[in-house]
Amino acid sequence: MVKRIAIFGSTGSIGRQTLEVIAAHPDKFTAEILTAYTNEKLLIEQALAFNPSVVVIADEKKYKTVKDALSDTMIKVFAGESALCEVALMDCYDLMLAAIVGYAGFKPTLNAIDTGKAVALANKETLVVAGDIVMQRAYEKRVPVIPVDSEHSAIFQCLVGEGRNKIEKIILTASGGPFLGKKPNFLVNVKRDHALQHPNWNMGAKITIDSATLMNKGLEVIEAHWLFGASAAQIEVVVHPQSIVHSLVEYADGSVLAQLGNPDMRTALAHALAWPDRVESGVAPLDLLAIGQLNFEAPDRQTFRCLDLAYQALAAGGTAPTTLNAANEVAVAAFLEGTLPFLAIAELIEATLDFLPATPAGDLEALVYADLTARREAQRIMQRSFC
Amino acid sequence: MVKRIAIFGSTGSIGRQTLEVIAAHPDKFTAEILTAYTNEKLLIEQALAFNPSVVVIADEKKYKTVKDALSDTMIKVFAGESALCEVALMDCYDLMLAAIVGYAGFKPTLNAIDTGKAVALANKETLVVAGDIVMQRAYEKRVPVIPVDSEHSAIFQCLVGEGRNKIEKIILTASGGPFLGKKPNFLVNVKRDHALQHPNWNMGAKITIDSATLMNKGLEVIEAHWLFGASAAQIEVVVHPQSIVHSLVEYADGSVLAQLGNPDMRTALAHALAWPDRVESGVAPLDLLAIGQLNFEAPDRQTFRCLDLAYQALAAGGTAPTTLNAANEVAVAAFLEGTLPFLAIAELIEATLDFLPATPAGDLEALVYADLTARREAQRIMQRSFC
Repeated sequence: MVKRIAIFGSTGSIGRQTLEVIAAHPDKFTAEILTAYTNEKLLIEQALAFNPSVVVIADEKKYKTVKDALSDTMIKVFAGESALCEVALMDCYDLMLAAIVGYAGFKPTLNAIDTGKAVALANKETLVVAGDIVMQRAYEKRVPVIPVDSEHSAIFQCLVGEGRNKIEKIILTASGGPFLGKKPNFLVNVKRDHALQHPNWNMGAKITIDSATLMNKGLEVIEAHWLFGASAAQIEVVVHPQSIVHSLVEYADGSVLAQLGNPDMRTALAHALAWPDRVESGVAPLDLLAIGQLNFEAPDRQTFRCLDLAYQALAAGGTAPTTLNAANEVAVAAFLEGTLPFLAIAELIEATLDFLPATPAGDLEALVYADLTARREAQRIMQRSFC
Repeated sequence: MVKRIAIFGSTGSIGRQTLEVIAAHPDKFTAEILTAYTNEKLLIEQALAFNPSVVVIADEKKYKTVKDALSDTMIKVFAGESALCEVALMDCYDLMLAAIVGYAGFKPTLNAIDTGKAVALANKETLVVAGDIVMQRAYEKRVPVIPVDSEHSAIFQCLVGEGRNKIEKIILTASGGPFLGKKPNFLVNVKRDHALQHPNWNMGAKITIDSATLMNKGLEVIEAHWLFGASAAQIEVVVHPQSIVHSLVEYADGSVLAQLGNPDMRTALAHALAWPDRVESGVAPLDLLAIGQLNFEAPDRQTFRCLDLAYQALAAGGTAPTTLNAANEVAVAAFLEGTLPFLAIAELIEATLDFLPATPAGDLEALVYADLTARREAQRIMQRSFC
């Protein structure tokens, strides 16, 4: 049976690679919904190539361009952020590939779950902000949430068939990013272009900066907590510069299961699209002999403070992870614009967390409010103290 | 429910470690049958500690000693190699831990399968000699064959839940043994004591010599072929000196699943006893940070020729693996006695394989005959050419 895929965020790095996998398996997958934020040119190109039922351009100013370009097709065109939420409710697809960056991807994902769609989750903020609500609803709807992050995809694969067995420990690997081994006296001067040079992974700007600060790993700790029901104490972060071992799970008998592979997102994407089957991803087979060596070391938590801030937010619970995520989005955007120094990213997040103590996150409204409040306060603190 | 275990070979390294795991979980396991070849002293000690239903001492001269020592107990005592086969047919146990070294373990294991017992297989010769027959009977009886070799236990664990998915490749790791990196000019002079010093694993003498020659890995290639239905071309051997990654399985999407752990057989034993559950094994958790580095390199097939001889025997099929195994048992015994030089082990095996071309192995009798013939010819060739 052909699986009908909705790609939310089809013009980003993850979306484009997802379409590569779909194109390689026309007998197994079709792209039924494609959505983009502003890149109307690529969205049009993708729509003409894959002939989905629906496309959405979030930037309403670009509606006419897209509509005109697709006027000779049967493709329905919608515009605006609210349209993202609405098309997520449609019945024309089986699995949502949730790849919209940041908080904007959250509500469409929840709509997919609420209408019983499987979700392949590349948007980690959804779980960071509202992991409790999302996983509870997925549980109620018996909807699988299949992670697409390479680390969580690895953990997911190490848990298959082990449902009866308790996890002792989850070991999340971190590449260490472009500044592995660097100290504050170096980091005080680093610029955007240097931070964007990830040694192993070719990813979007936001997640690449998060890799450089280790916040990416911090968000993944929170994500792993919600996806796999592991406590913070059960989740360990180990730096593994080669990014070959994508993560590991330890069991009671001393067995540690791991998933390895070349650092290419198409493996996790193919896994998420095809699960519980597996299909070819186009990724070259792992050549352990050519790699020769895999290294592991402890993260430098003094220099890369975002990791501990994430553990603290997870421990504080309630709205704290939402605040952490919002402050981080504000800080990374400012760093990418050149207005916030690299080391101030962690400082701004910490100051925002200090200013907004965690409160219970009873429902979605509380989280939406916490997100907005944290963004506003992070902006305010940034203007006053860091710029 | 308590699982009743029969340990065939309880006084060897594997048997003793199995009893450690059983002792740690009296609520989960009992030892119902214990068998030993000649070590009556330890067998008596084990019987008094674990109170099995039955013990067997294969060496009939020691029957009276064992019988007298256990006269105050309800434990039934049998003697002789035929008794091993007979008690394997009894109904007092659920799972056989097949740990008798070499060909002698073969027939009792087959009897366990024929009477519907699960088999935890530490005796690799059983599959090397008669993998086709054993796996076919296990399939017919719906009996699980759970490997206890650390490598095959790893592969088994990497296949759990993946039944629908094709294996691309099995990567068997090899420590390389005590002579990793050595060349023939060094090996020409090595003695028994040096060959018995394995860098990572504490094992019996036969398997330790097999590790030093790489024949152990060769036998494992044949074993993996039968256990997992993989062709010789799908099975790769990679030297991994730390013995932390116990083996790996590659899938179509580029995912490579691996099982890691400290080199301690109790992990694989606890896994095999408890499967599909997991129990504590007493093995320390893996500390990747303390290990720091995992290395991989190609085996030196020119120097350690036993590996390719095993691949050749697997390719030749029929009786060839039986001949390989028998010649190896003769050669290793002679090396341990000091009558055969280290490098002559491979030469003797090759000469025996050359002298006895593979014939179809239609039934058990053909294999028993091939085994006896190969032992006799290996002895003859050895006397004439190598001693």
